[in-house]
Amino acid sequence: MRDVYVIGIGITSFTRLEYPLAEIAAYPAVQAMQDAKLDKVDHMFVANMGAGRVNRQTGLASAVIDHLCLQPAGAETIENGPASGASAIKAAYMAIASGMHDTVLAVGAERMNEVNSLEATDFVSTLSHPMAEAIYGVTLPSLAGMFTRLYMHKYGVTARHLAMVAIKNHANAMHNPFAHVRNLITMDGILDSVDAPTNNPIIADPLRFFDVCPVSDGGCALVLASEEVAKKSGRPMIKLAGVGQATDTHAVHDRPDPTELTAVKLAAAQALKMAKKTPQDVNVAELHDAFTILEIVESEEVGFFKKGEGHLALERGETQIGGKIPINTSGGLKAKGHPVGATGVAQAHEIVTQLRGEAHKRQVKGAKVGFTCNFGGFGNNVVCLVFTRE
Amino acid sequence: MRDVYVIGIGITSFTRLEYPLAEIAAYPAVQAMQDAKLDKVDHMFVANMGAGRVNRQTGLASAVIDHLCLQPAGAETIENGPASGASAIKAAYMAIASGMHDTVLAVGAERMNEVNSLEATDFVSTLSHPMAEAIYGVTLPSLAGMFTRLYMHKYGVTARHLAMVAIKNHANAMHNPFAHVRNLITMDGILDSVDAPTNNPIIADPLRFFDVCPVSDGGCALVLASEEVAKKSGRPMIKLAGVGQATDTHAVHDRPDPTELTAVKLAAAQALKMAKKTPQDVNVAELHDAFTILEIVESEEVGFFKKGEGHLALERGETQIGGKIPINTSGGLKAKGHPVGATGVAQAHEIVTQLRGEAHKRQVKGAKVGFTCNFGGFGNNVVCLVFTRE
Repeated sequence: MRDVYVIGIGITSFTRLEYPLAEIAAYPAVQAMQDAKLDKVDHMFVANMGAGRVNRQTGLASAVIDHLCLQPAGAETIENGPASGASAIKAAYMAIASGMHDTVLAVGAERMNEVNSLEATDFVSTLSHPMAEAIYGVTLPSLAGMFTRLYMHKYGVTARHLAMVAIKNHANAMHNPFAHVRNLITMDGILDSVDAPTNNPIIADPLRFFDVCPVSDGGCALVLASEEVAKKSGRPMIKLAGVGQATDTHAVHDRPDPTELTAVKLAAAQALKMAKKTPQDVNVAELHDAFTILEIVESEEVGFFKKGEGHLALERGETQIGGKIPINTSGGLKAKGHPVGATGVAQAHEIVTQLRGEAHKRQVKGAKVGFTCNFGGFGNNVVCLVFTRE
Repeated sequence: MRDVYVIGIGITSFTRLEYPLAEIAAYPAVQAMQDAKLDKVDHMFVANMGAGRVNRQTGLASAVIDHLCLQPAGAETIENGPASGASAIKAAYMAIASGMHDTVLAVGAERMNEVNSLEATDFVSTLSHPMAEAIYGVTLPSLAGMFTRLYMHKYGVTARHLAMVAIKNHANAMHNPFAHVRNLITMDGILDSVDAPTNNPIIADPLRFFDVCPVSDGGCALVLASEEVAKKSGRPMIKLAGVGQATDTHAVHDRPDPTELTAVKLAAAQALKMAKKTPQDVNVAELHDAFTILEIVESEEVGFFKKGEGHLALERGETQIGGKIPINTSGGLKAKGHPVGATGVAQAHEIVTQLRGEAHKRQVKGAKVGFTCNFGGFGNNVVCLVFTRE
């Protein structure tokens, strides 16, 4: 297999964007190509989950190629639920590693603001099991709520631990100009007290408002290239050194132990093995915290901490910038935002920014190995990536 | 790049299927794995266009993995409009050629019967340009109608030539047990006459009912494998020898000459070059005849006939079984049916069947080189494949 490098990155603000979906995809693609000093590419993959249903558009990738005037380069839309972004990066990896193409855009984009937040939850529930979950009203927040309750019971995680994830990620997002939610929150007033009503209502018990990511629009893009093209570009050599993917049962209740995120464990191990790294080699990680509990559990399944001890490491500050393994320096899905198809690409965007040393106030000093975990469904299709600075 | 072979195939009837979409995908996948003598695969791509909108389902690929109990194998949905199927095959090709995976399922599936035929036309128009075509009511049949009128004017194609495509493909479908439309039609009564009203009403002038493919449900699957696995399987060695893809402008009116299908020309040339073949080496071809005119024009752009002469070759019987270059022996989209995401995979299914010598009454004798053209949008994203028998 040929080695594959990221030589260009681009991103929109994650917020509510009043542009057509294809433009939300095209804008960061232009940025990424400028960053890579390229005026054409061989191929493009566009990660998106909602175009057909939310935006009434199919053939999105062809539309984006048209916006970018990149004909006759081929293009496809890749859909893997919330892990669509990392799946597009994996597809780009294989396109280059195979020798089929030398330069590939991996773009992710979502425009959710055509639906309200209730409809957004309804839309996202289309990825749960249609005959065992969705039909009974099981949405992603309700799955996450039940999962959290089990985890609290089994490992002693408390509402304070969940809040610590949100507080940390909001703080990180303050230094990310592209983040959707940029306000500092503190422990005061976000948990129940006998003295004052909380401003943090329950969404899906025990998960509260500040445990759940926002509904965002946004786009993000990477240019991936063969070693030869990467060297010629003169851009920092950020290698996509490891790619791992694993699936799990569609219905969460079919898992022998629903508190185990087996697909995260397998995908992470695969990606790290391919990159010849251990979890302890990783300097910075973006984990898929659509719900605060997920950051804690993923930090264990990836191997940063022992099973059941992620919340203790969090409490000790080990996942903060400056800690042992900073997690979600971008603000994560929680505060950076979660435009579904764009999320996995944006995780990689943050890691590349960190490995280039261009993350300014949120920079992890000397970061050389970065890791992303993009979580599809409720953990039924997970893609992990390892990036290294050469 | 490693060589890639097709070692297993499976297909459902193309008709109206009262099964959930994920089962329509899973059923031919099981057949293809049995055919390949495999009980697991490394990865799967599922080609589909309408799950999000028509079937209210996202994360389809993860659902199909679950139906097949293939965890932890990874999977993605690939969407490239009507060319989704061939795009999934291309993705599978790159996954194996790169060395990332050894065995990959390329599955295509569509379940259109949740909408009526008017809604189906509305749905398919979501792939036309949202701001320059769809918004003005330009549907795929209307684009095809205008395209046909121009082609008639420029090259002397007549309604009789269009009917000849339909008559030939209906006749071929009589020998294909999986075809949707299995009734012989003849020239009598399908064109206007002063003596009798036609039973072939106009859909989008000059295209009539028998010029347009049906709205079908169906699924199809291939198992692709590395040379090593293919040899071990003991199955016939059908090589995926050429892969080509090209895009064109999104809006048809943006093309310098709208009667040129440039993306077909480029994708075909690329696929043939990679396979080290010429159009004249091809023994059997499946072309994307969603509208009868397309078979004629594609047969020219691929290089089987000179530009503007496809209808003359058709008239001479050169595209019939037994002719110089039999086209759409399966019945084509016209008569076999067009479950959108499945179509490109089903084209490959027919070619593999022909190259294996298993096409019974529709067999092209001694076929060793087969070709498919899968046409996305209205020619804005085209994928061509060349298969050879070793």
